[in-house]
Amino acid sequence: RSGKMAKLTHLVDNEVFRAYATYTTIVLLKMMLMSLITAYFRITRKAFINPEDTASFGKGESAKKYLRTDPDVERVRRGHLNDLENIVPFLGIGLLYALSGPELSTALLHFRIFAGARILHTFAYLIPLPQPSRGLSWAVGYAVTISMAYKVLKTALYL
Amino acid sequence: RSGKMAKLTHLVDNEVFRAYATYTTIVLLKMMLMSLITAYFRITRKAFINPEDTASFGKGESAKKYLRTDPDVERVRRGHLNDLENIVPFLGIGLLYALSGPELSTALLHFRIFAGARILHTFAYLIPLPQPSRGLSWAVGYAVTISMAYKVLKTALYL
Amino acid sequence: RSGKMAKLTHLVDNEVFRAYATYTTIVLLKMMLMSLITAYFRITRKAFINPEDTASFGKGESAKKYLRTDPDVERVRRGHLNDLENIVPFLGIGLLYALSGPELSTALLHFRIFAGARILHTFAYLIPLPQPSRGLSWAVGYAVTISMAYKVLKTALYL
Repeated sequence: RSGKMAKLTHLVDNEVFRAYATYTTIVLLKMMLMSLITAYFRITRKAFINPEDTASFGKGESAKKYLRTDPDVERVRRGHLNDLENIVPFLGIGLLYALSGPELSTALLHFRIFAGARILHTFAYLIPLPQPSRGLSWAVGYAVTISMAYKVLKTALYL
Repeated sequence: RSGKMAKLTHLVDNEVFRAYATYTTIVLLKMMLMSLITAYFRITRKAFINPEDTASFGKGESAKKYLRTDPDVERVRRGHLNDLENIVPFLGIGLLYALSGPELSTALLHFRIFAGARILHTFAYLIPLPQPSRGLSWAVGYAVTISMAYKVLKTALYL
Repeated sequence: RSGKMAKLTHLVDNEVFRAYATYTTIVLLKMMLMSLITAYFRITRKAFINPEDTASFGKGESAKKYLRTDPDVERVRRGHLNDLENIVPFLGIGLLYALSGPELSTALLHFRIFAGARILHTFAYLIPLPQPSRGLSWAVGYAVTISMAYKVLKTALYL
């Protein structure tokens, strides 16, 4: 068994793969943070969507008034969905890219720019910063993913 | 070719990776089940969102009344989105964790608790169970993912 | 380092894995296209959701009227979410399936049908085509994913 383990962990000895592992974990943790921010705004704004979540505020009409949408909650939720839409492609295409044998420096450049762009995107969405801050940070992450997809298809294309 | 195949399938000979494959497939199938439950409620509650889906109920006003939201449908959809938000991080971080050389028993503990927590979360959301059932089952899955992310970053960190 | 790189790129020498890489990249790029289509409809229909996105239309009431939902924008967004719900399982289960040692011809059949079904689903959703076009194309992609999950569990089951 330990022989097979050793082979597996070769993946983690590879610097490009380690960089992929690091930056993927960072952007996924960042995405997970959106859940906590949503919960924070739901609780501080008292804006819930499930009746069972307002039970502690009492019964009947007194609790029902907390079943409402709040602009700050909705904003975080939109940021969270945008993360899903953009980090899922990075997760998949980035893994294939890391396995396609890119130069370490090129791979690091892709991963760092993507992670930076997504972190900026979150700040731009939540503060919010005036446009085109959010649009540009979204576009940079998108372009990095397209660039990695091009390398994957150039290396691995098999239709 | 078969030589390379053999090397590839070493991954599947590895017990940690097999456990990851098993539990990831289980939670992804569970998430896919949410689509069927949504369809079931849309059809039984006659609550659709796309005009072309109500065409079989006739034309004009008689069909239009089925273009509406239904609390049960919306509840399943929220559960589905919550799955996406939590199972996507497990998919990515769990894969990297499985490749980071954890002890088999530790890895199994992580995977089993995560899968159990997400299944409980679905029951808590759909029945619905009183809070904090849903909140706790969500938090347990979240904590397991954080724990795996910590191991990945400790093993592979390369910034 | 190059020795380890060589081992890693064995994955990309494997034809089943190359096919997985190709079709996964294609469906993820297709999913990413939904972001551009959403942006296109938001701009041409002048239907935005974030106040900061309408700042260029002026201040106050003149800009506020563009903060509205539009049926075409909402339709693309639903298609995008449906992609997430179905392509995420393909990403995870498909990877495990590709590593479970399937026949190349069988694997290609799965990947090609899935990609074709998801592309048809997008056309069926956006044009829109009369039902059951969208329902059937969804079901075909769903069935392909279930079939791959069955192979993964048969090969790797470790509970």
